[in-house]
This record gives sequence, C-alpha cells and structure tokens, in this order.
Amino acid sequence: MDSDILSSAMKAASSAVDRVLDKIIQNGSGAETQLVEAMRYAVLSPGKRLRPFLTICAAEVFDVARPVAVRTGAALECIHSYSLVHDDLPAMDDDDLRRGRPTLHKAYDEATAILAGDALLTLAFEIVSAPETSPKAEVRAELCRTLAKAAGYQGMVGGQMIDLSAAREPLAESAIHRMQQMKTGALICASVEAGAVLGEASTKARQSLNYYARDLGVAFQIADDLLDVEGTEEATGKAVRKDADHGKSTFVELLGVERARQQATMLADQAIEHLADFGDKATLLRAVAHFAVNRSH
Amino acid sequence: MDSDILSSAMKAASSAVDRVLDKIIQNGSGAETQLVEAMRYAVLSPGKRLRPFLTICAAEVFDVARPVAVRTGAALECIHSYSLVHDDLPAMDDDDLRRGRPTLHKAYDEATAILAGDALLTLAFEIVSAPETSPKAEVRAELCRTLAKAAGYQGMVGGQMIDLSAAREPLAESAIHRMQQMKTGALICASVEAGAVLGEASTKARQSLNYYARDLGVAFQIADDLLDVEGTEEATGKAVRKDADHGKSTFVELLGVERARQQATMLADQAIEHLADFGDKATLLRAVAHFAVNRSH
Repeated sequence: MDSDILSSAMKAASSAVDRVLDKIIQNGSGAETQLVEAMRYAVLSPGKRLRPFLTICAAEVFDVARPVAVRTGAALECIHSYSLVHDDLPAMDDDDLRRGRPTLHKAYDEATAILAGDALLTLAFEIVSAPETSPKAEVRAELCRTLAKAAGYQGMVGGQMIDLSAAREPLAESAIHRMQQMKTGALICASVEAGAVLGEASTKARQSLNYYARDLGVAFQIADDLLDVEGTEEATGKAVRKDADHGKSTFVELLGVERARQQATMLADQAIEHLADFGDKATLLRAVAHFAVNRSH
Repeated sequence: MDSDILSSAMKAASSAVDRVLDKIIQNGSGAETQLVEAMRYAVLSPGKRLRPFLTICAAEVFDVARPVAVRTGAALECIHSYSLVHDDLPAMDDDDLRRGRPTLHKAYDEATAILAGDALLTLAFEIVSAPETSPKAEVRAELCRTLAKAAGYQGMVGGQMIDLSAAREPLAESAIHRMQQMKTGALICASVEAGAVLGEASTKARQSLNYYARDLGVAFQIADDLLDVEGTEEATGKAVRKDADHGKSTFVELLGVERARQQATMLADQAIEHLADFGDKATLLRAVAHFAVNRSH
C-alpha cells in the first residue's frame, strides 16, 4: 500500500478520535475545571493515535460501523495517554517533554497529573460500557474485560513496575520480552482485539489477529527503542537517549542496532502473514505493520 | 437492630470480601511481585469495608446470591483503596498514616504506590466485567458503567481535585456539598446501586435506594469530619485534626460541632425513611445508617 494512503487514513482516524474525545471531555464549570483541562491536554495532544487506529482497522475487517470503532478507539487512547502521564511523573521516569510539549505535571502540577491520569483510565471504562458504544451488552462487557486485563497488574501496569525495577537490576533477554509484552504489547493486542470484539469475530479470526498484534507489538517496541537511540528530539517530540541514561533494558541494548532493525522487519513480515485469511479487508492492518518499523516518530 | 448484630454482619462481610480479594490478587513470580504485594497491602489492610457491605446489604434486598454480591463489593473496595493510596501521596494530601499503618508510599515508595493504585482501579473493572460476577452481560456492563461514572472526573476524582484546590481557596457551603457528593458520596451511591444492578431492581426501587445512599453519604461524611475534630489517632487509625491544618473546607467547620452532629443524625433518619417499601429486607441498610453517624472509627 502506498504510504500516502496509509498516512491519510491515519490522519482521518486520528481526527475522528479527537472529535469524539473533544465531545466527551467537556470543561465543567466547577472547581474541577483544571482537571478537565489537564485531561484534554494529555489526551488531545499531538500523537499518532496508533491504538485507536488499530481498533478501527481491525473493526473494518468485520465491517463494523465506523463511529462505533472510533468511539472504542477513543477509550484505548484514554488508557494510553493516562499511562504516559503517570509514567512521566517525577517518581517514575521523571520526563519533562512529551509529544513536543511539557509533560502534564510540568504544565500543571503533580497532583493534577496523577488525578488526570486516574480520570482518563476511568473514562475509558465509562466510554466502552456506555450503550452508545454498542447496543449489545455482551460486546460492552467484553470490551471492559479486554481493556482491564491488558491495562492492569498482569499487563501494562505490571510491565511498568518491572521496567522501573530493571533500572536497578538489568533484565535477561526473556525478562525483557515479558516486560515489553506486558508494558506495551498488551495494550496493542487489546486495541486489535477490541476491533474483533466489536465485530463479534470467530475464535479463529481472533486468534489470527492476536498473533498479528503480538508480533506487531514487539516490532513497534523495537522501533521505539531504535528511535530512542537514533532519533532526534524534534522528530520524536520527547527526550531521546534516555533509556541508556536511565540504565533501562531494551531490545537495542540487547541485540545491537543492526540486529534489532532486522528483527523488527522480520516481525512485521511475520505479523502480516497472520492476516492471510482476511484478504483485502486487512490492507490497512498490513500497512500499519510496515509503518510500525519504518516510522521516524 | 442490636448493634452487636450489625457488628457481626459487618465482620462476616468484611472477611468474605477479604477472602475474595486474597484469592484474586495473587503474588506473581516475576519482577512485578512488589506491585502485587503493594496492592495487597493497600486493599487487604484493616478497614470497615463499608462500601462492599453496602453492596451486600443492597443486594440482599433483592435476594441476590451472596457470593455475587461479595465479589462485586470487592471491586468497590478496590476503587476505594486505590483512591486512598493516591490521596495519601506526597503531591496530594501527603499522609504518613492510614488504617493504623504507614501509608503505601511510606511502606514502599511513591512509584509503587502510584502503580498499585492504578492497578487496583483497573482490577475493579476486571472483576465486575468477568462472567464469574454475573452470567448476564447486561448486569456486568451496567456495573462497569456505574463504577466508572462514580469514580471518574465527574465523581470521585473530580471531588478530590476540588478538595485540593479548596486548600487554597475556601469553598462556599453549596460548593462543599457538591465536592463531598463527588468525592465520597458518588462511590457510596455506586456501592448501593451495584446491589440494585445485581438484583435487576425496578426503576422505583433504584430511586429509593439512591435517595437513601445520598443521605447516607452526607451523614457519613459529616461523621468523618467530626472524627477528624474529636477522634483520636488510635481509634481512627489515621492522623487527626489534619483538615483544619490543611485549611480544608468541611461541614464541621461550616456548621460547628453541635449543628453538624444534629445534621448527621437528621440525615441518617431521612435516609432510613427512603427504605420504607423494602420492609425487613432492608434491616441491615437501616442499621448501617445509624452506624454511619455513631461510629468511633
């Protein structure tokens, strides 16, 4: 697929997701206005909206109505942006720059950042459990469960805990794989799975998409590590070379730049192979896999 | 009702909830062990388990199977304890003592406390969306929605934001009411409503229970404020006299001790009046209302 076509599809999806988030998260008139502003600052900041895009692309495989997929994708973006806000806190990774702007606790304060993160996480579940997301309760409940499992202590939060402890004690290769699968991979898998849940996909189709998402997640993470080593602050919108500074265990540190790049490309190809049954309907999912390893931001 | 009967009912419910939480939150073997330990430290610490008890009592009105109510109550306790962990953080209320023990960030560290809070909040949604909670997807999805609305930026998190900003700028009476309804009242209402959701209660029954819960929530909060003024650190298990020290706006500050106490008793009586239709099935709910205003911890 032409990279321009992917690029415009991603832009369109991103705008649609932002419109939904803009509509849902409205400034209140009370003393909590600052919280609402902070939530908007975090979730509506410039970004790829990769996770919602994955939901939208996976839902397209099953001809799910687009507004439903966009709304569900918005919930995934809430979880992703909450995780960035909390990870950036002084007690965690202590980052000042995110998506080209001051991190939330720099723009506001720590208390506001903690609460805005909490509120975005909670909002994700409010969004997917609302009848507007799906008239079928089975779908809504399953979306809640999919998101909660991926985001919780056996997924994303657990991965962040391991990552923090790894700054003190370097991890072995298998432990890095497990940490990354939990920290980044689980929510990427959930983003794809959410599309399958909306589409009430067969077990076989879900399995194929899950294999795709797992490979994509690792490829994406390796590409992220490479950007940290080789990217510029201007292009990535965040501080670079910080993994090494923080003594973090990454794939690039483990494999070296060249092997890491080969591994990412190999995983993207492998991800695409799992989409064989979906024909043309999976064109965008295939393009995303190429994008994940060839991006500059 | 004899206060001994209430007391033993609360103890039995509390043990049942703790058994469920103990079973669900199991120590992992990986590097995330510390996270799991911290979650257990927070959620299994000594406490009244008032919110689960409310869920269990409300569910009893509709003859819901007890294990289902206990499991749902456990989810509410996860949300309550996450909120305590985050509220105690240095960037928030900066408390060292909670339930008679060091607060979580004192016992571990700030990063672990932030993540354990995040994980407990997420776990609540994993618990209520699981088929073990209810075979009916409609019930599971509605529980998710009830909890998310109560806990989010238009509920508990919003209330905490207002409370923090009130330390800088004292609130008017109506604003204190609104703040408390969001910060404490919303989750108390959700605890009662969860029982009604499990019982697939009629709109009328839900409305009555909602009125009960709103009055109970305010009565409970006033009693809490009174304990802060009059209680001892030994009995309450947390630092006292801190609201005034932090310049917080409370009902007691607003009304004075005597009028606040009268107001709490009046609200408890009013709460009980809303239970008239439920006869003997609401005996425990009535007893809780009395307990809320007469407790010493």
